[in-house]
Amino acid sequence: MNSEEIKSTLKKYSLQSWSKQKNINPISVEKGDGIYFWDYDGNRYSDMSSQLVNMNLGFSNKAIGDAIKEQVDQYCFVGPSFGAESRAKLAKKIVELMPNNMGKVFFTNAGAESNENAVKIARMFTGKSKIFSRYRSYHGSSFGAGNLTGEPRRYALEPGVPGFVKFFDPYIYREAIEFESEEAATKYYLTKLKEQILYEGPDSVGAIVLETITGSNGIIIPPKGYLPGVRKLCDEFNILMICDEVMTGWGRTGKMFAFENFDVKPDIVTFAKGVTCGYVQLGGVVVSKEIAAYFDDNILSCGLTYSGHPLACAAGVACVNYYEEADILTNVNKMGIVLGEKLEAMKDSHPCVGDVRYIGLFSAVELVKDKVTKEPLVPYGKDPEGIMGKILNELKARKFMTYTHENMILVAPPLIITKEQLEEELVKLDEVLEIIDKEYI
Amino acid sequence: MNSEEIKSTLKKYSLQSWSKQKNINPISVEKGDGIYFWDYDGNRYSDMSSQLVNMNLGFSNKAIGDAIKEQVDQYCFVGPSFGAESRAKLAKKIVELMPNNMGKVFFTNAGAESNENAVKIARMFTGKSKIFSRYRSYHGSSFGAGNLTGEPRRYALEPGVPGFVKFFDPYIYREAIEFESEEAATKYYLTKLKEQILYEGPDSVGAIVLETITGSNGIIIPPKGYLPGVRKLCDEFNILMICDEVMTGWGRTGKMFAFENFDVKPDIVTFAKGVTCGYVQLGGVVVSKEIAAYFDDNILSCGLTYSGHPLACAAGVACVNYYEEADILTNVNKMGIVLGEKLEAMKDSHPCVGDVRYIGLFSAVELVKDKVTKEPLVPYGKDPEGIMGKILNELKARKFMTYTHENMILVAPPLIITKEQLEEELVKLDEVLEIIDKEYI
Ligand SMILES: Cc1ncc(COP(=O)(O)O)c(C=O)c1O
Ligand SMILES: Cc1ncc(COP(=O)(O)O)c(C=O)c1O
Repeated sequence: MNSEEIKSTLKKYSLQSWSKQKNINPISVEKGDGIYFWDYDGNRYSDMSSQLVNMNLGFSNKAIGDAIKEQVDQYCFVGPSFGAESRAKLAKKIVELMPNNMGKVFFTNAGAESNENAVKIARMFTGKSKIFSRYRSYHGSSFGAGNLTGEPRRYALEPGVPGFVKFFDPYIYREAIEFESEEAATKYYLTKLKEQILYEGPDSVGAIVLETITGSNGIIIPPKGYLPGVRKLCDEFNILMICDEVMTGWGRTGKMFAFENFDVKPDIVTFAKGVTCGYVQLGGVVVSKEIAAYFDDNILSCGLTYSGHPLACAAGVACVNYYEEADILTNVNKMGIVLGEKLEAMKDSHPCVGDVRYIGLFSAVELVKDKVTKEPLVPYGKDPEGIMGKILNELKARKFMTYTHENMILVAPPLIITKEQLEEELVKLDEVLEIIDKEYI
Repeated sequence: MNSEEIKSTLKKYSLQSWSKQKNINPISVEKGDGIYFWDYDGNRYSDMSSQLVNMNLGFSNKAIGDAIKEQVDQYCFVGPSFGAESRAKLAKKIVELMPNNMGKVFFTNAGAESNENAVKIARMFTGKSKIFSRYRSYHGSSFGAGNLTGEPRRYALEPGVPGFVKFFDPYIYREAIEFESEEAATKYYLTKLKEQILYEGPDSVGAIVLETITGSNGIIIPPKGYLPGVRKLCDEFNILMICDEVMTGWGRTGKMFAFENFDVKPDIVTFAKGVTCGYVQLGGVVVSKEIAAYFDDNILSCGLTYSGHPLACAAGVACVNYYEEADILTNVNKMGIVLGEKLEAMKDSHPCVGDVRYIGLFSAVELVKDKVTKEPLVPYGKDPEGIMGKILNELKARKFMTYTHENMILVAPPLIITKEQLEEELVKLDEVLEIIDKEYI
């Protein structure tokens, strides 16, 4: 098929996520290499969101590709109750990368399924059915994961699963009050959370689920002491702490897992995306030794045809080894400094930039009409004039590919990006911010 | 790793579906070819369940393997909003294989996710929130799919999603009354279903979800006229008919999709397993043209990172083409006759066989203590003496690999099985039935 045929065939025969289908207009991708991909007309695009923040190692990583081919030669699939070498290797590798309280992994196909199973496991283990999660969050869009999700993508799943309770993230930049210090903010959020747990009844709360760092809802980085404080509340009330590391895991924030930035040990960790960079779909739930032991004598009432898919696990082994062998974390930390400095400079120089938030190669630029009032560039949940779409188009015209959410631009390039590449791309972002300054505020 | 290492590593670091972990004891699989696979000691096993009824073409299908490798060389992944050739090709192919009322496909990773999204789509399209499904059914184990599920694997997901309503399957063999004819049975089941729709309120019922043929709960084949009758009720009350073809699709029953056996056109079809034989995980939801058109102007509030995964779609294109080019349906229909004759003979000759049900290469042997009273070999939901496990072990000793459910043995070999192979395997089953006759009844 040529480029036009691919596009028209998709428009005719397939449904695209989160869209009015009359609006879809897919760029056909012919090939990719590192942080770049090309359409069929030879145009080169820079992947500044690592696709959906999954392609941490960019396109065409040879080690992962070769591992997939090798696994094809052994076999692609064997059922979850059989022993497959890639499955065993990856399970071991993952548990070894976790803090020493963690015990076993249950494999799934992707992020939503990981969160679904984490909640099931938490309910089975604790015997308590209420599950806390946050408003500014995305955990997937199946019934369980979608009801954990707090933002509007949840609405299509309501009336929701009984017992799912929402609380607010520590979104200091837009809180209704101003805090004197980070410590004061932490104290406020933890006090409110404790109050809510008490009012819901701690004896019925099984788990608190949080994106370690809120991802697609705006890279909301918890203030100092917040996550350890949540951990303490969990310990106090016998609640499991579940960190959703689907987006933040596998090096994105400069540590292998984001919770390592905050000196905290979760009871359950969910992952997906970066474990294979999406080369083959894979996700999973890592549980503590204590939880794992519970299922020695109690049936784990979780299952899926493709749990621990051998081809996916082979990709996972190669991918995780690559992170280590290529010392990816070092690059993330170095490039993270460059990214942070540039973003701070943009915030200083552009009236349209209200806030920039960044950690490792995970960042967002929050756009405002007015720096002082913080009025968002587009109102929450709406964009009647399609301003964010126009901004995306300006970026796209410069082949800077990413996505936006509400009034925010996400910047999360592959973790292999070089300084030269990063600087080259950020010049484009700067240009577009200049246009926003002039045209939209 | 050697065989022992794989096993002990899995036991130490991974959680296995639907099990007490102390009981797991995985056979490590070294290689596979066609209907056979081998452990590391050179023992050859016959795959009489096509793994989890997904490996329709058996192990080591070269066409699918080559397609995966080729796709690796182009790229493994690109996000759902981009054009990928394999994604376009497969979408077109699938819609073209469907009845002419069907319009577009939304891709997912597997079966549960397909059912999750089918329900979401039905609710969005109809604006009605109640969803009917059946007690003897398995639709997956995430919150949505697991609450569609009627059998005990649902319990871990309760309290369930509001608005999910259950009715009983046409399980004639175990109905509380005896029917004079198939027609009488059909009339009874449809009358009861209509009564239940009326009592739930037709204006709030959005969809009826059914496995076209109930699969893991015992190959329950609908009586003549039943599915067209359900279709008529759906039309009468403006309810969508959703056929779950996750297990029955892709040739398993002798037609490409099982509903083709019953002269009926669903509004939504969910699929997974056989579309790639599980070589790479893939599922999807096919919707009617009318439903597809609705989403031209209304946002499709469904999405997942790996919707239309290019590597999975490449495997799908190769797999579906292979079904056609190798004329798999002809083999299924021929072998289905052999299978049916042999199963009938077993029913005649073994006191322990209460019923045999079969269509294409999809069949179950239902075991009883007494052919007249139909008392099941093990009581519903229990097996205190572990009898079914012992039966599985007898089959396993003969290298006849399958799984059981309640008092039933599933027989669903790869669709490429030859007459010689099938006959050779069924001799083993016959031997084991002989043992059951002697030891357990
Ligand atoms: C934090 C988080 N959790 C879960 C998910 C859902 O993952 P998936 O789309 O693979 O189901 C996402 C997807 O973006 C995510 O960002
Ligand atoms: C009829 C049916 N629907 C759905 C599923 C769930 O599919 P998956 O395990 O891929 O989520 C299954 C799995 O066996 C099934 O048999």
